[in-house]
Amino acid sequence: MALQAIKTFEIRLIPFKNFIKHSIRPLSSLPEFSKNKYNVKRKSFNLIEDAHVSFFQNLLGKERVLTDESELLSYNIDWIKNCRGESRVVLKPKCTEHVSAILKFCNDNNLAVCPQGGNTGLVGGSVPVFDEIVLSTEGMNNIISLDEISGVLVCEAGCILENLDNHLREHNLMMPLDLGAKGSCHIGGNISTNAGGLRLLRYGNLHGSVLGVEAVKADGEVIDCLGTLKKDNTGYHLKHLFIGSEGTLGIVTKVSINCPTLSSSINVAFLGVENFDNVLKLYQLAKSSLGEIMSAFEMADAASLETTIEHLKLQNPIGDYPFYVLIETSGSNESHDSEKLTEFLEKTMSSNLVLNGTYQTEPSRIKPIWALREGIPQAILYDGYVLKYDISLPLKDYYSIVPIMREKLGSDAVRICGYGHIGDGNIHVNIAIKEFSQEIIKKIEPYIYEYTSNLKGSVSAEHGIGFRKPNYIHYSKSNACLGLMKSLKNLMDPKGILNPYKVLPS
Amino acid sequence: MALQAIKTFEIRLIPFKNFIKHSIRPLSSLPEFSKNKYNVKRKSFNLIEDAHVSFFQNLLGKERVLTDESELLSYNIDWIKNCRGESRVVLKPKCTEHVSAILKFCNDNNLAVCPQGGNTGLVGGSVPVFDEIVLSTEGMNNIISLDEISGVLVCEAGCILENLDNHLREHNLMMPLDLGAKGSCHIGGNISTNAGGLRLLRYGNLHGSVLGVEAVKADGEVIDCLGTLKKDNTGYHLKHLFIGSEGTLGIVTKVSINCPTLSSSINVAFLGVENFDNVLKLYQLAKSSLGEIMSAFEMADAASLETTIEHLKLQNPIGDYPFYVLIETSGSNESHDSEKLTEFLEKTMSSNLVLNGTYQTEPSRIKPIWALREGIPQAILYDGYVLKYDISLPLKDYYSIVPIMREKLGSDAVRICGYGHIGDGNIHVNIAIKEFSQEIIKKIEPYIYEYTSNLKGSVSAEHGIGFRKPNYIHYSKSNACLGLMKSLKNLMDPKGILNPYKVLPS
Repeated sequence: MALQAIKTFEIRLIPFKNFIKHSIRPLSSLPEFSKNKYNVKRKSFNLIEDAHVSFFQNLLGKERVLTDESELLSYNIDWIKNCRGESRVVLKPKCTEHVSAILKFCNDNNLAVCPQGGNTGLVGGSVPVFDEIVLSTEGMNNIISLDEISGVLVCEAGCILENLDNHLREHNLMMPLDLGAKGSCHIGGNISTNAGGLRLLRYGNLHGSVLGVEAVKADGEVIDCLGTLKKDNTGYHLKHLFIGSEGTLGIVTKVSINCPTLSSSINVAFLGVENFDNVLKLYQLAKSSLGEIMSAFEMADAASLETTIEHLKLQNPIGDYPFYVLIETSGSNESHDSEKLTEFLEKTMSSNLVLNGTYQTEPSRIKPIWALREGIPQAILYDGYVLKYDISLPLKDYYSIVPIMREKLGSDAVRICGYGHIGDGNIHVNIAIKEFSQEIIKKIEPYIYEYTSNLKGSVSAEHGIGFRKPNYIHYSKSNACLGLMKSLKNLMDPKGILNPYKVLPS
Repeated sequence: MALQAIKTFEIRLIPFKNFIKHSIRPLSSLPEFSKNKYNVKRKSFNLIEDAHVSFFQNLLGKERVLTDESELLSYNIDWIKNCRGESRVVLKPKCTEHVSAILKFCNDNNLAVCPQGGNTGLVGGSVPVFDEIVLSTEGMNNIISLDEISGVLVCEAGCILENLDNHLREHNLMMPLDLGAKGSCHIGGNISTNAGGLRLLRYGNLHGSVLGVEAVKADGEVIDCLGTLKKDNTGYHLKHLFIGSEGTLGIVTKVSINCPTLSSSINVAFLGVENFDNVLKLYQLAKSSLGEIMSAFEMADAASLETTIEHLKLQNPIGDYPFYVLIETSGSNESHDSEKLTEFLEKTMSSNLVLNGTYQTEPSRIKPIWALREGIPQAILYDGYVLKYDISLPLKDYYSIVPIMREKLGSDAVRICGYGHIGDGNIHVNIAIKEFSQEIIKKIEPYIYEYTSNLKGSVSAEHGIGFRKPNYIHYSKSNACLGLMKSLKNLMDPKGILNPYKVLPS
C-alpha cells in the first residue's frame, strides 16, 4: 500500500448562515413550537407592548428593531430546525451602551431576553422558547485591536469566527478555536457556550485562551474584565462566569483572546482503519511521534463518512473502511514536520494500524479532506429528523455507545453515526430517524445519559445545556453544584430575565 | 564568538521549605506583627477557646492539632518574613470530610480560618493576620489517580508540586506548571493563587489546564467539580471560582489536571544581550524560529544575575552583559530541535542580537543554568529587606519601570532588579533596601501601581492580592468588578470567615 494522491473536490457544503434559506425541507414543515413540543409553561414575564417597542426604536433606530413576522422567522428557529419560539421583536444593538440600556429597561419592565449570536447552537440555547425579546449581536462586529507581537485580539461579540481568523491570518496569527460553524457563529456565542471544536487538543480551551471579557449583567451593569494581559491575578477571575454560562448570567459584548502564531507548515493525513481499538493505538502513537506538531486528531465511522459522500456528493479519496482518522500537523518547519509525519505513517502502515491513507500539504487539497469530516453534522440532516448527542467518555469506552444504540434502535433509525475529537474524549453520536417521534426518543433517553453518567462522562461535552438538556444536567452535576449554580443565577439575574428556560433545571 | 561549553555548578540554593530554619537573619529579628506593621483592626470573630480545641482534637486526633507556640511560628510567618500573624492553632486535616467538618464548625462558631499550603506566597495571603485558625493542607498529599493515555492526574490539594512532577516523569508526563517554589508549594495553593510560573507561554494557565476541582465552602458544603474530562459543558464552570480566589471563596481539597507529555528533547540556551530592545527582538525571532518547541523565554538584567552570583555563589558561564535571556525548547525530536535552535542562535549571533551564549542539552548541565534564573527571588533576600513587585506591562514598556525606580530611589536602594517572563509580559521588580522603611516605601507606592495602571498593566501578574495588595487592587479592577467580587464573597462566605483581611478591599 502506498500513500495516494488526493483530488481536489468541489465543495458543496451549504454555509451555515444560509441553511434555513437553502434548507431541503420545505417551509410548510416548519418545526412545532417548542412550548408545545416540550410542554413548557411560560414564566410570568410581561408581554411586549407598543410602548416597549417605541423605547427600543428610540434607542437603536427603527432599522435595528425587527418586528415583521417573516423577518423574525430565522431568529425564532434554531439551525437544526428543532426548536421554535415566537418572539415578536429582534433587537440589533450596535454597542455595549445599547446592550446595557436594553437590559436595564427589560429588567425594570420584567421582559425576558434571549441573546443570540450566529444561531448555530445545537441545544436550542440561542432561540426563544416563548416571546422573549431576541437580542442579536450581529450589529456588534468590529475588530477593536490586534497586537501582532503579543498575539492579542480584541473585538466585539458579534464578529464571525471565520472573519476573525481571516483577519488574523493576514498578520501571521490564527484563532485558537475552529469549528464547523465558523462561517456563521459569533465569537460572543463561542465564549458564552465555551465552544470546543477541532483543535482543542493543541490550543486548549477558551477558559485558557480568553484573556478578557466585557459583559453586561441583567440589570444593565457593565462588567469590564476586558484585560489583554496573559497574567493578571488581581482578584477573582470574573470573566469565567461568562464563559460557558450560555447567556444566563450576562451578555458578552467584547472579548480579548490570545491567538497563536500561524504555522507555516500544515499537513493533513486521512487514514482508513480496521477497528476502533486501532484508532486508539494510532492516537497513542501519534501523540508520541508527532508530539508538539499535532493539531487535530479526528475520527469518523463509516456511517458518518457515508453521509457526506451521499448527501454532499464529496469523494472518499481512500476507499471504504470501518473507521477513518484525520490527523493534522501544524509546525514551523516544513521539512521537519514532513519527516515526522512520513515516519509516523510508514510505521503505522507497516504495522497495519492504518490500512490505507493519503496525506496532503497543499491548502487546496487539505480543504476537501477537512470537508469530509466537517460536513458530517450538516449532511446527516438530509436523512430526516436528527437527534444529536454530544458526550465525553473515557477513551477506552469512547465508541462503545454507537453499537449499543444501533442494537437498541434497529430499523427505527435511518442512520446512526459516531464521529468526533479523540484527543478530547468527545464523541458526537448522531441518530437520524424518519421524523420526530417521542416513542423512539424514549428508547434513547435517558438511557444514553445514564450510560454516560455511569462511565463518569459528560452528557454535554461542548454543545452546552441550552433548552434541550436542563433535565439531564444532573447526570453530570451534583446537587451541591446545581445549588451553587442557582445561587449564582439568583445573584446576577434575580428576576431571571436572561435566557429563561435554559441551562438551569426547573 | 562561539557557543561555549558550560561547567556543572554546585547548587547552593536553600530549598524553600527550609528557608525559615536556614534563614540568614537571626531569630531575634522576627518580623513585626502584621496587625501593627500595617495598622489593621481585628474583625469581630470569636476567640478560640479550649472547647474549640477539644472539638478539633476529637475530630482529627491530637497530633493533627498544633498549639505549641514554637511549632506555630513557621505557620505564622510568611516566606519572605514580611508578614506575621499570631494564630494559636494549626489544623492538619487528612481528608475532605475533615475540612468540611472544620469549616462547618468554624462557620457555626464564627471562627476565622486561614488556609495554608506550602506557605511560599509573596503577598502575605497564606499566613494569618490575627489569630485565625491555620488550616494546613500538608496532611492531604495523596495522588489519587493518573491516566497515562489521557494524561489526567487527580490528587489531593496538599501534594507538593515537585513531587507530582517527579511522579509524572516516571510515566512520561509532566506538570503543566513550574515555578521556583516547586519544592515546597502545594498544588492546592497553586490552584488557589492561579500560579503562573516559567512555562506558561507553552502550556497555558491553570484556568486552561485544571480539569476539575473539589472545594469546600465556608459552611462546610463540598462542591465536587472534580471532573477529569477535557470537554464538559454541563452548566456553569464553577471550578474557576476557586482558581485564583486565594482561599476566600472556598478551600480547594482535590484537583484534576491535564498534564502534557514529557518532551524527549530539552535544550536550554543562556544568552548575553546588549540592551532591552534587543531582548524584545530576540523574543520575536525566537517565536517565529522556534515556534512550537519554545517552552520558556526568561530574562534577567545584570543586577538580577549579580544576586545569584554574589549570594548563592553560582557561576556566570558567559561573562557580564547588561541583559541575559534564558530560552528553553522542549520537543519530540532531538535532531529537529537542535537544528532549529542552532540555526536560530547562529542567526542571532551573526546579527549581534546576542553577544555571547551557551546552550546545553544534558539535564545535569541544564540545571545550573536554570538555577541562575530561579535563584534570583531568593538570592536578593540576602541584600536586606526586599520589596517585591510583580507586574504585567505591555511588552514595549516591559522594562521601563526599572530605570525609573533606580532614578527615583538612588542610594535608598541596595539593589534594584528586573527579571521575569517575557512571553507573558510579566516582570518582577525586586527592590532591596537596608531595612523596612515607610519613608522609602512611600517613594515607590503607589507610584509603581499608578505607572502600571496608566499602561493598562496588572499590579499583580501572578502573586495575587493576598494581604498586601487589597488597597491597590483598584488600579487593575473597576468598581463594577469589585462590586461583583464582594457579592460573590457574600454569597459563598456570608460571615467572611475564609481568609479574612485578604484580597477584597475593605
